[in-house]
Amino acid sequence: MVTPLRVAVAGFGYWGPNLARNAANHPGMDLVAIVDANPRRLAAAKAAYPMVRLTTDARDVLASPDVDAVFVATPPETHCALVLEALERGKHVLVEKPLATSSHDAERMVAAAAQAERVLSVDHTFLFTPAVRKMQSYFAAGEMGEVYYYDSTRINLGIFQSNANVIWDLAPHDISIMLHLLGEPVTSVSAFGARHVDMKNENIAYLTFQFEGSLLAHLHVNWLAPTKIRRTIIGASRKMLVYDDIEPDEKLKVYDCGAQIATDVEEMYGRLVEYRTGDVVSPRLDKTEALAAEMDHFVNVVRGAELPISDGAFGLEVVRIIDAAQRSLANGGIPEQVQR
Amino acid sequence: MVTPLRVAVAGFGYWGPNLARNAANHPGMDLVAIVDANPRRLAAAKAAYPMVRLTTDARDVLASPDVDAVFVATPPETHCALVLEALERGKHVLVEKPLATSSHDAERMVAAAAQAERVLSVDHTFLFTPAVRKMQSYFAAGEMGEVYYYDSTRINLGIFQSNANVIWDLAPHDISIMLHLLGEPVTSVSAFGARHVDMKNENIAYLTFQFEGSLLAHLHVNWLAPTKIRRTIIGASRKMLVYDDIEPDEKLKVYDCGAQIATDVEEMYGRLVEYRTGDVVSPRLDKTEALAAEMDHFVNVVRGAELPISDGAFGLEVVRIIDAAQRSLANGGIPEQVQR
Amino acid sequence: MVTPLRVAVAGFGYWGPNLARNAANHPGMDLVAIVDANPRRLAAAKAAYPMVRLTTDARDVLASPDVDAVFVATPPETHCALVLEALERGKHVLVEKPLATSSHDAERMVAAAAQAERVLSVDHTFLFTPAVRKMQSYFAAGEMGEVYYYDSTRINLGIFQSNANVIWDLAPHDISIMLHLLGEPVTSVSAFGARHVDMKNENIAYLTFQFEGSLLAHLHVNWLAPTKIRRTIIGASRKMLVYDDIEPDEKLKVYDCGAQIATDVEEMYGRLVEYRTGDVVSPRLDKTEALAAEMDHFVNVVRGAELPISDGAFGLEVVRIIDAAQRSLANGGIPEQVQR
Amino acid sequence: MVTPLRVAVAGFGYWGPNLARNAANHPGMDLVAIVDANPRRLAAAKAAYPMVRLTTDARDVLASPDVDAVFVATPPETHCALVLEALERGKHVLVEKPLATSSHDAERMVAAAAQAERVLSVDHTFLFTPAVRKMQSYFAAGEMGEVYYYDSTRINLGIFQSNANVIWDLAPHDISIMLHLLGEPVTSVSAFGARHVDMKNENIAYLTFQFEGSLLAHLHVNWLAPTKIRRTIIGASRKMLVYDDIEPDEKLKVYDCGAQIATDVEEMYGRLVEYRTGDVVSPRLDKTEALAAEMDHFVNVVRGAELPISDGAFGLEVVRIIDAAQRSLANGGIPEQVQR
Repeated sequence: MVTPLRVAVAGFGYWGPNLARNAANHPGMDLVAIVDANPRRLAAAKAAYPMVRLTTDARDVLASPDVDAVFVATPPETHCALVLEALERGKHVLVEKPLATSSHDAERMVAAAAQAERVLSVDHTFLFTPAVRKMQSYFAAGEMGEVYYYDSTRINLGIFQSNANVIWDLAPHDISIMLHLLGEPVTSVSAFGARHVDMKNENIAYLTFQFEGSLLAHLHVNWLAPTKIRRTIIGASRKMLVYDDIEPDEKLKVYDCGAQIATDVEEMYGRLVEYRTGDVVSPRLDKTEALAAEMDHFVNVVRGAELPISDGAFGLEVVRIIDAAQRSLANGGIPEQVQR
Repeated sequence: MVTPLRVAVAGFGYWGPNLARNAANHPGMDLVAIVDANPRRLAAAKAAYPMVRLTTDARDVLASPDVDAVFVATPPETHCALVLEALERGKHVLVEKPLATSSHDAERMVAAAAQAERVLSVDHTFLFTPAVRKMQSYFAAGEMGEVYYYDSTRINLGIFQSNANVIWDLAPHDISIMLHLLGEPVTSVSAFGARHVDMKNENIAYLTFQFEGSLLAHLHVNWLAPTKIRRTIIGASRKMLVYDDIEPDEKLKVYDCGAQIATDVEEMYGRLVEYRTGDVVSPRLDKTEALAAEMDHFVNVVRGAELPISDGAFGLEVVRIIDAAQRSLANGGIPEQVQR
Repeated sequence: MVTPLRVAVAGFGYWGPNLARNAANHPGMDLVAIVDANPRRLAAAKAAYPMVRLTTDARDVLASPDVDAVFVATPPETHCALVLEALERGKHVLVEKPLATSSHDAERMVAAAAQAERVLSVDHTFLFTPAVRKMQSYFAAGEMGEVYYYDSTRINLGIFQSNANVIWDLAPHDISIMLHLLGEPVTSVSAFGARHVDMKNENIAYLTFQFEGSLLAHLHVNWLAPTKIRRTIIGASRKMLVYDDIEPDEKLKVYDCGAQIATDVEEMYGRLVEYRTGDVVSPRLDKTEALAAEMDHFVNVVRGAELPISDGAFGLEVVRIIDAAQRSLANGGIPEQVQR
Repeated sequence: MVTPLRVAVAGFGYWGPNLARNAANHPGMDLVAIVDANPRRLAAAKAAYPMVRLTTDARDVLASPDVDAVFVATPPETHCALVLEALERGKHVLVEKPLATSSHDAERMVAAAAQAERVLSVDHTFLFTPAVRKMQSYFAAGEMGEVYYYDSTRINLGIFQSNANVIWDLAPHDISIMLHLLGEPVTSVSAFGARHVDMKNENIAYLTFQFEGSLLAHLHVNWLAPTKIRRTIIGASRKMLVYDDIEPDEKLKVYDCGAQIATDVEEMYGRLVEYRTGDVVSPRLDKTEALAAEMDHFVNVVRGAELPISDGAFGLEVVRIIDAAQRSLANGGIPEQVQR
């Protein structure tokens, strides 16, 4: 029988409780400690996990020999210092997205994980949702054909942060899904944004991603939209996908383009072309909670049984793309190279 | 009693029959002639309007003293020559969008109309739809507050032209509505696009429009989308609008932001802000067909009873913006000034 | 080459113009006459079909040897006399639904058609829509398995007649589709309804149809609903169908029940059972207009090349079911046998 | 300061944990005990509420002087005995719907509550949802006008019980909302249902409710539908309501009928009437969780500060209506009087 991974959760704010719950419920993990600087948060942790060690000082946990892995859900600007120390102390790390708030920090974290020979995994949870896994299966099986474009919209009216802009807050979701599915490096990014309602950071942004060749990707993120939209459209030569995360039942629709018919409809005013698709299928999706699937994956990566799909290098790539977007935003939308 | 306007329709392809039908049915117009170079088209015109003069040669109509106005629905590249001649011959003109295929041509047409003291109206039909008229009433009454952004998506899979790109084909609709509602000049445009499936012109494009101040506008046009979307979201300080032209009944939704509440939700990781809207209203819309309302307007403009809302200068502005988009497209997305 | 069928259209009100247009456009038909007692209607017919014989007196047409078939689109209460005379005069007949306003009249019409050896076809147009034809193909191929229920809702706010109730107006659509698909006789009908807003006839009704065995069918028809719903759900052991006629693109959804999984979820408070379906498919539908397909069918039936799918006997069955519903309505909802 | 109500929860299966969580979180309640006969359930209760007394024997709790109220979430067939004993012992009771499995049992429970002078409240949770409270406010303010019909559909494919039919499982929700809003007694009920897939109880049923006058109500409940629908349409002379509980944001739509226009559209074939509505409003709904609002209400009823809206008499009325439906079901759909 395999010894469970002893897990500490750092940060018990919005996301930490989800990590703690999944660690506590996973047969391959023991939740052994929770860290949070805020006593009120710690009291909530105590109520939920009365048997678990609780502390306001992360160093207690990082120094402890009975912790194998640290799940970091503290604010992004604190990730770098905490993760570096955890890796140095020989802990495996799962860190909430974004990996870091700059490419430079992210690079240091990737190097430290290599040095320490420990797992550094970035919690891009969406990669583990049933819809994304199903889409990924089409890409992996070569069923998409040539990919034409990737178009994503993630907008809503709701709660937002005042210490980051909408790109840092929302774009990591879409960029991680896009990289995971397309498997191609983004060469340059253009970003336009604006600030409204006395905000100090952008609340709306449009990002255009360029790749080698004619593949084009685009993302609209917006904190100030009256209606909630979370939709990705992927156009390709053999299938087209519409992934609508708001839909309760049919989140994914697959349009068959194999039966695509091109006809000259009329000759008069130049050539008109008609495209049509065949049947539309909403594939049955697995019901596994994304975070539970991600926990399985993390355990397997630590044990060497699976290759990581969202490791430090992947998280670094996401941060580099956002860095390029930030530079473009500052330059009035002129496309900026993604640095490597 | 007022003498009806004697109208000739030039071009009986896709759009011409709609112009002819509306002219024939309007109490202030007489449909007197239809021109089309294609005999098969002319036969269709004869079946529908057996009493109307039919000709393959536009000059017959332009030379005729018993024609007061010409409705031009020929291909865009033929607009300039035809409209210039019509104006010189003293005819009023209603011309299908886009006014011309270059700013230079459009400028000549505007100058010719001024010279001839004749009405030059551009058929941006969407301006006359009940939903756009309702939205315009909010802007005109000052009920929107400060406008933050204008976001439009016009995508579908269907019939498309091979002799123009998707911007020239679809963007005039959105640009005309945007200019009509916002009433502010676009300063620069960035455009990204791509060509797929052996097309010689772009089938997908993203356009970002910049204005003075923090107002931002964006348009996604796409001929190769598996699903049809025609939606415009307008964010402003007092109202937010969602105009969904696919919806059969509730095309327009108005979100009340007067009751907008901003609360600090939590202090821990920086300030979080919550925005909420009040009631959502789908206003009852008038059922008048857009083209019928546009015919009324044209007659009234000719008679001097109304100021034109889509005259040559307006149509020229649309073309200038598209010209800037085309230059940006050629320059890899770098924003281009709209020339004036 | 086959001689076209010479068609007269009787009644040029709401539906007659559609019949006339389809007859005029069909290669196997010649539209030779239009009858309407109302001079204003006749003037409209003249404008549209200047070459066609027009008359206010149906007897002119029925007596004419150069008419092979009469398409009857006059008010339902006039069908019987007109159709009987047409059949006696040796004309084939296509008659708008409902065939008659009583079973007794309908029986006389069926007998007369047999006697005259002429085609009597009832225009249940919905049977020829792409969605219904696609559904019928599943039933015909035995792909549905055991049918459990047929549930239909046809409600809206709009124009309605004052001289019939909502059952006579709307139910023939659903009853004809149901009979066509299920191919089983209705044994009894229960109907509840109510009158509101000073109407003299029912504006809302609920009909329950019983068959041999455990198959159950139900219909809600309503003229006074704030939202338009036209949806049919068919539950069966191998497929479940949702036919939503309001949907512009995906009118039909097919739920695969082959992969249906029944699990005991929990034992505690009795057996709980979970049912799930597999993929959902929106099959690509043909775009042929229903009425054009029906015209093809009518010509083929007259020529003996196809068996009728909506003949007099079928139309009679629809009327008998409505008769039973009317009796149940009068009896406070007690189920009434369908008489045969 | 007011002493909190000391609450015991009996039954920790599907619904009990929600009652326990809300009791534990309510400032006016102390959760003091949890009862469940199943040790596995009790272990789950212990993990969640380590400080609360746990027992497999309800009598421990009912005999205890330090329990003021019992929340009963055991299977329906156990309600009667448990509630009677609780009332006799002087406890206030909140019992999950349905109150009982027969009118006779429900009557005994109502009488016992009167005798004991204790609160007997039935947990018809839907009455406390923001959407139902908003609708109720229109009725209470007299803004609906004359009510014409109440039409509800509650169907889905999912988990269902094998020891009750779909009416007992789902109809209490709709019947309780209907009674709460309409405030009028149902006079008779007709029910049709069917059993499929080797079930021993009905999995589909149609219920028609009759009242004094022309008001008509109808309910479709179905465990075997491929798509989930939870929609209620209420037609009245001044407002029409559509309550769609699946909608994440706009659960309630209010159609203004004040501007309703009735026009004679055409005179030819009898009088045609057109009805139209004015603006459609989706009112902003409160976000309070229904169960939290219900806890407030229960505390206030116990303290005498509010009149009960879902007391024993109300719960009895729901059971009587279901009893009538069951009798009608057994009689082939013949309407049955609601007994009083």
